[in-house]
Amino acid sequence: MKYTALLFTVALSSGLSAQNITDTAHHEAFIRGVYDRALEGQYAYNWLEELCKDVGPRLAGSEGAENAVRWAKATLDTLGFDTVYLQEVSVPHWERGEESCYFTESKEALSMCGLGGTAPTAREGLTAKVIEIPDVDDLENYSREDIEGKIVFFSAPMRQTYINTGSAYGEAVKKRFIGAVEASQYGALGVVIRSVTTKKDDAPHTGSMTYSGAYRNIPAAALGYLSADRLQRALRENPELEITLKLANTMYDRTTSYNVIAEVRGKTYPREIAIAGGHLDSWDLAEGAQDDGAGAVQSMEAIYLLIQSGYEFKRTHRVVLFMNEEFGLDGARTYAVMADSLNEDHVIGIESDGGGDVPRGFSIQALQSGVEAVKSLRWYLEPYSLNEYSVGYSGADIGQLNNDYNILLGYRADSQRYFDYHHAPTDTFETINARALELGSASMASMLYLLDQYEVRP
Amino acid sequence: MKYTALLFTVALSSGLSAQNITDTAHHEAFIRGVYDRALEGQYAYNWLEELCKDVGPRLAGSEGAENAVRWAKATLDTLGFDTVYLQEVSVPHWERGEESCYFTESKEALSMCGLGGTAPTAREGLTAKVIEIPDVDDLENYSREDIEGKIVFFSAPMRQTYINTGSAYGEAVKKRFIGAVEASQYGALGVVIRSVTTKKDDAPHTGSMTYSGAYRNIPAAALGYLSADRLQRALRENPELEITLKLANTMYDRTTSYNVIAEVRGKTYPREIAIAGGHLDSWDLAEGAQDDGAGAVQSMEAIYLLIQSGYEFKRTHRVVLFMNEEFGLDGARTYAVMADSLNEDHVIGIESDGGGDVPRGFSIQALQSGVEAVKSLRWYLEPYSLNEYSVGYSGADIGQLNNDYNILLGYRADSQRYFDYHHAPTDTFETINARALELGSASMASMLYLLDQYEVRP
Repeated sequence: MKYTALLFTVALSSGLSAQNITDTAHHEAFIRGVYDRALEGQYAYNWLEELCKDVGPRLAGSEGAENAVRWAKATLDTLGFDTVYLQEVSVPHWERGEESCYFTESKEALSMCGLGGTAPTAREGLTAKVIEIPDVDDLENYSREDIEGKIVFFSAPMRQTYINTGSAYGEAVKKRFIGAVEASQYGALGVVIRSVTTKKDDAPHTGSMTYSGAYRNIPAAALGYLSADRLQRALRENPELEITLKLANTMYDRTTSYNVIAEVRGKTYPREIAIAGGHLDSWDLAEGAQDDGAGAVQSMEAIYLLIQSGYEFKRTHRVVLFMNEEFGLDGARTYAVMADSLNEDHVIGIESDGGGDVPRGFSIQALQSGVEAVKSLRWYLEPYSLNEYSVGYSGADIGQLNNDYNILLGYRADSQRYFDYHHAPTDTFETINARALELGSASMASMLYLLDQYEVRP
Repeated sequence: MKYTALLFTVALSSGLSAQNITDTAHHEAFIRGVYDRALEGQYAYNWLEELCKDVGPRLAGSEGAENAVRWAKATLDTLGFDTVYLQEVSVPHWERGEESCYFTESKEALSMCGLGGTAPTAREGLTAKVIEIPDVDDLENYSREDIEGKIVFFSAPMRQTYINTGSAYGEAVKKRFIGAVEASQYGALGVVIRSVTTKKDDAPHTGSMTYSGAYRNIPAAALGYLSADRLQRALRENPELEITLKLANTMYDRTTSYNVIAEVRGKTYPREIAIAGGHLDSWDLAEGAQDDGAGAVQSMEAIYLLIQSGYEFKRTHRVVLFMNEEFGLDGARTYAVMADSLNEDHVIGIESDGGGDVPRGFSIQALQSGVEAVKSLRWYLEPYSLNEYSVGYSGADIGQLNNDYNILLGYRADSQRYFDYHHAPTDTFETINARALELGSASMASMLYLLDQYEVRP
């Protein structure tokens, strides 16, 4: 509650003192400068091009991820931080092999990819009849006899009618994450799902899945939306139809990777820490521009914009580029454990992991006093089209730091396009609009600045 | 002021009657249904694909424009309107011929296009030295001697620092519209401009320009952003450099085209008219997905969504697809003159002509009472991310209907990407996101519904 009272005086009182009016005008001018430099400099956009085109896909444990770590360290080294360092993270090492799915008789191929962490099939593939079941919850309408020895095809599309696509994703992702476990209980030999996506194209969307020790680890893959349509039609014509699924992936021993951290020390409260974070890893098939190259470069730029302005940080600020959000959150967990063991006081966290589209606002994860403190600042950012402030989930990575003494914010980009590309080979640099991306960095920077200036905490 | 009092009672009073609460809940449910049908049906998105891919470019006066009129009439005929008809419009007929621009000595080509309505060059082209001048206002720093006999290169980029790109466009477009007139006063032989765009690619952006009877009509073309950079660098190395500009376009006699109008008659106030409009024409080099295919199909869908729901319209509602917004606003002027001569009472107009991106809100052109009436409805639409309500300009087409007795609204899609594609060959169907487009149609439909239900007028 430390400075909340001051904050309300400045932002809400109708009797502003001369000093406070000066402060307010100064803050407004500072923020305007932040946006100007982001929009003119386009640093994040240029970094993202390097990350997507020079580094490319960067699944944790892969050579791509190592290259990404090197790239991020080298880039951050040039930006005027006090220190830039790597933090060791143990990560899984799974590699996709050759894979395919086709109608057994006609050999007609379906657009597909294995889900992240799926078990492989036998070398000759898995050939079986298919039973179409809309979603995981519908399994209860079937008997073991219906399913045993077959490949379950979870065919339900992601719902289009939610306004925030994140809500639709939350509902739809169940079939991807636990579809194999659930189907395996009924004796299924494998699972194919309709990709979890908002777009009716034929790009397959991968993503993490889980197994349970209690049942066989059956292979699981995602079909492109249009391929799922084709399979659906084919099954209506011939319910005895067989498909062949081939997956030749390998799970290796765990390996070492890194969080990349850049820090600028606070002058007034060096032991209080504010972080801006995104994750550096991506899926193996994707350039990972939206997920989460955008968030990584925005986090870098957010603090760089403040450094560049000559801003005197009150608190210590860190960029944290987390490793392996996609496949187990190892980087975030490691970071949180380390922070705890060092007794670090993380006061503020902002994560960007919802794509690089135009800014909408922030989701606030904090006690009510923290929520109110953040909302009292919103008028500073309304001229920049940031007008949606919700309460709840901040982000998967910084969420690991959640406690009653800090304020965690999820930077919210517009969600409409995000799940068109999420985890698919179509998640490329070309889907990013320079201005949308830069407005996001500037929004994060401005929020960090205000929280630091007003010394906000819950 | 007719129903504004009622409106405030329903929307703002804390003592809602049981009847009013029921009405409010009914409106909320109705609007939810409108969004559901738009997002699931994706009618506008499918129509836009036909308009962009089957019809293609449709500059007023061209065969493409004729095909667009036929397509729109045929499509509207299937949607359950009471009447669908064409309204004759006289339009100019300008045709682009072969064109090029290159460094005279090296023959190295620059990416370019002639501006809309430019005079042609001589057959062998115009070869001359180039003088780089940032913008039209900078001409006053030069003498006739500096400029005479040369090609003026207006090199200033569109400013990146405005948050709304429309503001930056307003500033930047001067060089395109009056650059030739102004340079001609100094004896320039031609004009090339840096394309008016937010994106640093090499697509040239055309658009309308004007001439004045008092000076020679000199030819004018736009260079792609990167080509403008190249010309700038080349001039720094060699200020004596010559370029050759060739434009072989032709201005023919005016011809006849059409506004396409679809109407559903109001049951309570049939003589009061509400319209949803966009323009059907595009530039000749563009599929015109953002400008303004999106607005055309959203206008169609907005009223179709209401018809489809079985809604009993109080007022008469029209879709108006205006012809030739780009090259003289002939359709809008003709429509306004006709409306005036028929003594029609246009109460409401909503125009979509800012691209098909995610919804942001509405710009309101009305007396203060009308502005307040619209704003009092905004809480219905906030769950759909419509939260920016500004006062001012509605749209170029419906703006022709502006008077003190009506409310004109500009539907405002997010502006960040719009000028990346505006008037360029890159303005294609692929730049449109289905959900963003559909949310726009639903937003327009919901606003029309509320204005009709509450019988709003200024």
